[in-house]
Amino acid sequence: MAKRNPSVTISSLGEDRLVHRITQRLPSHPSLITGPGDDCAVVGKPRDRVWTLLKTDCVIEGIHFTADVDFSRVGWKALARNISDIAAMGGKPEHALITAALPPEMLVAKVDALYAGLKKCARQFDVSIAGGETSRSPGPVFISVALTGRVERTRCVFRSGGKPGDVLFVTGTLGGSIQGKHLDFTPRLAEARWLTEHFKVRAMMDLSDGLGADLPRLAKASGCGFEIAHIPATAGCSPEQALGDGEDFELLFAVKERDAAKLERDWPFKKLALTRIGSLTANRRRSASPIHGFDHFA
Amino acid sequence: MAKRNPSVTISSLGEDRLVHRITQRLPSHPSLITGPGDDCAVVGKPRDRVWTLLKTDCVIEGIHFTADVDFSRVGWKALARNISDIAAMGGKPEHALITAALPPEMLVAKVDALYAGLKKCARQFDVSIAGGETSRSPGPVFISVALTGRVERTRCVFRSGGKPGDVLFVTGTLGGSIQGKHLDFTPRLAEARWLTEHFKVRAMMDLSDGLGADLPRLAKASGCGFEIAHIPATAGCSPEQALGDGEDFELLFAVKERDAAKLERDWPFKKLALTRIGSLTANRRRSASPIHGFDHFA
Repeated sequence: MAKRNPSVTISSLGEDRLVHRITQRLPSHPSLITGPGDDCAVVGKPRDRVWTLLKTDCVIEGIHFTADVDFSRVGWKALARNISDIAAMGGKPEHALITAALPPEMLVAKVDALYAGLKKCARQFDVSIAGGETSRSPGPVFISVALTGRVERTRCVFRSGGKPGDVLFVTGTLGGSIQGKHLDFTPRLAEARWLTEHFKVRAMMDLSDGLGADLPRLAKASGCGFEIAHIPATAGCSPEQALGDGEDFELLFAVKERDAAKLERDWPFKKLALTRIGSLTANRRRSASPIHGFDHFA
Repeated sequence: MAKRNPSVTISSLGEDRLVHRITQRLPSHPSLITGPGDDCAVVGKPRDRVWTLLKTDCVIEGIHFTADVDFSRVGWKALARNISDIAAMGGKPEHALITAALPPEMLVAKVDALYAGLKKCARQFDVSIAGGETSRSPGPVFISVALTGRVERTRCVFRSGGKPGDVLFVTGTLGGSIQGKHLDFTPRLAEARWLTEHFKVRAMMDLSDGLGADLPRLAKASGCGFEIAHIPATAGCSPEQALGDGEDFELLFAVKERDAAKLERDWPFKKLALTRIGSLTANRRRSASPIHGFDHFA
């Protein structure tokens, strides 16, 4: 559509098609094992014992937070989003770079709170803040975080490794994040590290746009369809909210059918629900449409 | 000032004091060789043959470019700024992550142009575009680029290695970048690689805020003062413009006095001026004030 008509806007194109469009024919290095399309880029040589993970993400005033919240929560969120993506590959975070575009009239006390939140999150998840950049913003506060990580090659989990028959799990409950969790969530780093230590996780991602948007992405990357039997909605949330609210920052992953019962038995995180939500299927067509998630440009 | 009075704004605090403030007591890893304060963060072990460089930088509509320019030039600039910083450490760029916050009403044709410029710059300097993130912006277009690089340990140049008596050089001419060069500049990657191959470069940085702001930073990092004898102003620019316009993206560096003449003789880049502008001195106080550069929040 946009190819033939350059007056199309990105909101009418939609997020997934925009991303597809801008990631075509990107310059690449031989050391890039996985580029755009997974939770992180993966860099290394095919037989290296440890691979490097690269991730960037941003939070913007008026989109990901409102101007009146405690900015220490904004700092926490800005870094925790990236840690969640490193976790979703099975890795551990290492070095963060913080880019902050700030209006000149912003109070220094707010900047202090922002960095207090960034540092608190960094300390809790053993992240080094290695540098960054500040700039003036003529509009909203804009915080972009780039994060490196490391993952043992044998524990690196892509979105694309799922197979028909694999059982799908999610951690925690879904929906209602806007009530506050979206600013205070705990990236599932310990859980993902435990999973990749004890099980062959076949495909994994973190839920940022809602199960309704993210599960079809994982299934598509794995060349599968999916069936959903159960959705662990947050108390007070409808199934639609659980699927579409987004910003859950829980893990969605697939294991072989024969590992599923053992995983449920052995799961050591007693305060965090682990829910078998369904399975990957061989039928890609039938499952493509019933549920929807968050489109950033809609 | 801001410590006692939280109602201070960041414009009244000023950029250098803001950066000093937010880079205090940052969580760090043992693998972080150099954190905030140089052109890039440096990661590795002290005796590794090759170190990793990490850099992030951003361009914002209304600050670093206007809405009416060809967006392929915006894409070029967004990546070239980061390559310039990798060059200033003596390194080579590797993998870039692109974070783009875009208004929903933006034309897809503009996004296409933006990414065409990013890709063109990436191809010219052998950079891989490894991933990124798109988000909706409720305000201006905001592009943040994170870039990794590699540098041989023995060729890594910090800002802090200058000594009194070292001769200061800059490449190219200074001032007037706003006429267009700021969107189309060539990062001095080949020049910096040649310098670190053939000379012991004692301190180096790229000129982004103007010699008036950047030279005092290099001198201070090296524990030196400085004397300026000559400023290579762009044709039509006053000395004040050459010092203060900013966005020159030329190299400023220091070599031992005994290497200076040989460097001037051997310089192989015939189309690019190399100018001996002065020297580092032992007197830190006298040189601190006469010239000024660009403050992002002033």
